[in-house]
Amino acid sequence: MKYVTELECIDCGEIYAPEPERYLCESCDDEGLLEVKLDYERLAVEWSREELSSDPRGNMWRYGPLIPVKPGTPRPRLEVGSTSLYHAPGLAKELGLENLIIKNEGLNPTGSLKDRASAVAVVKAQEAGRHAVACSSTGNAATSLAGNAASLDEDMEAVIFVPERVPGGKLAQLLIYGAVVVSVQDNYEKAYNLSAESIDRWGWYNRNAAINPYLVEGKKTCVLEMAEQLDFEMPDWLVFSVGDGCTIAGAWKACKDLREIGFIDKTPRLLGVQAEGCAPITRSFRTGEPLEVTSEDTIADSIAVGRPRNYKKALMAVKNSGGTMVNVTDEEIMEMMTLLGSRTGIFGEPAGVAGLAGLRREAAEGEISRDDDIAFVVTGNGLKDIDNARRAASEPLEVSPDIEELRQIFEQRGIIKEDE
Amino acid sequence: MKYVTELECIDCGEIYAPEPERYLCESCDDEGLLEVKLDYERLAVEWSREELSSDPRGNMWRYGPLIPVKPGTPRPRLEVGSTSLYHAPGLAKELGLENLIIKNEGLNPTGSLKDRASAVAVVKAQEAGRHAVACSSTGNAATSLAGNAASLDEDMEAVIFVPERVPGGKLAQLLIYGAVVVSVQDNYEKAYNLSAESIDRWGWYNRNAAINPYLVEGKKTCVLEMAEQLDFEMPDWLVFSVGDGCTIAGAWKACKDLREIGFIDKTPRLLGVQAEGCAPITRSFRTGEPLEVTSEDTIADSIAVGRPRNYKKALMAVKNSGGTMVNVTDEEIMEMMTLLGSRTGIFGEPAGVAGLAGLRREAAEGEISRDDDIAFVVTGNGLKDIDNARRAASEPLEVSPDIEELRQIFEQRGIIKEDE
Ligand SMILES: [Zn+2]
Ligand SMILES: [Zn+2]
Repeated sequence: MKYVTELECIDCGEIYAPEPERYLCESCDDEGLLEVKLDYERLAVEWSREELSSDPRGNMWRYGPLIPVKPGTPRPRLEVGSTSLYHAPGLAKELGLENLIIKNEGLNPTGSLKDRASAVAVVKAQEAGRHAVACSSTGNAATSLAGNAASLDEDMEAVIFVPERVPGGKLAQLLIYGAVVVSVQDNYEKAYNLSAESIDRWGWYNRNAAINPYLVEGKKTCVLEMAEQLDFEMPDWLVFSVGDGCTIAGAWKACKDLREIGFIDKTPRLLGVQAEGCAPITRSFRTGEPLEVTSEDTIADSIAVGRPRNYKKALMAVKNSGGTMVNVTDEEIMEMMTLLGSRTGIFGEPAGVAGLAGLRREAAEGEISRDDDIAFVVTGNGLKDIDNARRAASEPLEVSPDIEELRQIFEQRGIIKEDE
Repeated sequence: MKYVTELECIDCGEIYAPEPERYLCESCDDEGLLEVKLDYERLAVEWSREELSSDPRGNMWRYGPLIPVKPGTPRPRLEVGSTSLYHAPGLAKELGLENLIIKNEGLNPTGSLKDRASAVAVVKAQEAGRHAVACSSTGNAATSLAGNAASLDEDMEAVIFVPERVPGGKLAQLLIYGAVVVSVQDNYEKAYNLSAESIDRWGWYNRNAAINPYLVEGKKTCVLEMAEQLDFEMPDWLVFSVGDGCTIAGAWKACKDLREIGFIDKTPRLLGVQAEGCAPITRSFRTGEPLEVTSEDTIADSIAVGRPRNYKKALMAVKNSGGTMVNVTDEEIMEMMTLLGSRTGIFGEPAGVAGLAGLRREAAEGEISRDDDIAFVVTGNGLKDIDNARRAASEPLEVSPDIEELRQIFEQRGIIKEDE
């Protein structure tokens, strides 16, 4: 917390002390999101790329000076971050591009970028003196919270509120991590409301990206890490799928931090990609009108957010970067799952590869140039959503245990040529 | 290949040149497994721990001098290895132990330790001049092969033979990686036979741990890496689940390599753990009798191998290490999935945590002492087998969206105490 100066309301500019449980601006009600302000001048003097590069930690905490947690607070034992960055020449060619790199956040310990936010949440919960941390979610936010809480040596209960219709697989991961899972026999809205009421009543720490200003500071470590992996030469474009808006806001916060403290000269333009069946932020970006809540009609469940609470931060991020937003269909997303998998060996969940579908669109339409340097982040592991992967994938070749039959099928498909 | 001298038959001792497609001993037929021999004397002189520690690569190829591949052959782009090693004091206490560390191989790019073998396989396939590599498997061997082949810049087809009844989820991962998946409309034995015939006929590279001597050399990098992470202070016990026997054989090969070249002084004892419903190697270990093929009756599908082809290497490994073998029930495995998950935030597949169940048994029976240093390897990611995770996990708390009802349930369960 050495370099954290204050929290500032992004709407009215009101200033608050950086208390762990300061969530929203009091004047602006539940619209008033706060942003963590850092002392960039002091950071520029007291921290350097050289010092960073000599930090032995291979996880997100190596960016400690930029993360608003106290140095002494125990961290979860899960090693969050240090995910692989790949050059993908084959895939780039396929998209008509020359230089494409991919960061695979599905390799985080619970399988998504959200581990970075949840790791911060369980640290802040301790700083608030809490022994339970709660959220309402059916997806990666919940599983990452459950996993990170489980890996703390200290006592920390994760309390997760899910709607009745949560898929069994996601439930399994939560329960294996030992979370208290409250299955609210009703829809998501009711589950959310019960969680809010419970958090108020029992004083749990609130891990909800819709209101907690510290989570975006965890998410930003993805791009801090990418910058270091790229030797602080940022790409021309940074591509993210967008749901609630918190992740792309974190990406921009990282760029801003790095530029202000002199670690990078150039900031990338952001390409934010939403699913056509749920694209309220793209709409607002294009029309300039206030956000309108939409339905949530896409297979990319991790970005199916009809009422995105971080949309203002997301819009500011894309605009300030000089970037743009685009929507993609579920069909394009599924196509990209197999293209990404077969060209790179990376298996991403639908929301995780939506950005790639958007990149293809923008490259095809010339919004992004062939020779631009592009970085794309796969936000979650495809193993989290096997059902949609099955829909996206082709069918196997069905044969009898007979080599002649197999030969015929292989020849038809061009897999073998026996005449040679 | 600089330090590779020859291949030696573990049965008759016959020597072969280390050709990429030299699979079995000609004199001993399909029983004659070969072992890769290294020039330890030269390695001890020409390589050092210091040189290793200054290698910038954060993946398995940093152990290059011990891996039988040519330096110039292109590697898959997937970053295999560099998986996290955790101290687990909470879990240790639960098992009556003082010092337990866990290596989570589920964090490899396709989600299992098998990535280490498949990465070597796609390199050897290129050295053999092949453009296709095949195996017959429904599990981690197949998916790791498909993923690693996909991530090569060079042309390399993965051809996977699966039996009719392969679960849809595993099929999905294979197809997303773009493998040629041949679904043989019959049982596993028929699928295996058709794969063998096809490999012969069309000259594909054979990625089959049952016969390929190079795969164990990839798998051993897990323990090479663990040794480096532990600053070359090996634990007293190293715990692995055992199916085909290739993984634990690789673990011992790593220990032997490291000792022979002077990187470690002490080698650990190996604890090999099989599932009670499929434990042919344990039986042979205990009785001293030749292996008898058994049925495959366990939820831990990755170690459900009734006819383990590497059993001789596995038996030699456990015996030479001064270790032992033990069996565990499916109930114990499921119990361990939740214990591991809730104490450490690590979600392992059933086969991946079987070792932990064995460790608990041996600790309880005094075979392993309270103050022994133990290392346990989780071999695969729990997301690969959500159905069994669901069976292992408890049920969520079902409530109406009503805070009074929730309060009562929480009080009954001791989650809150409101009277205070
Ligand atoms: Zn305000
Ligand atoms: Zn022989």
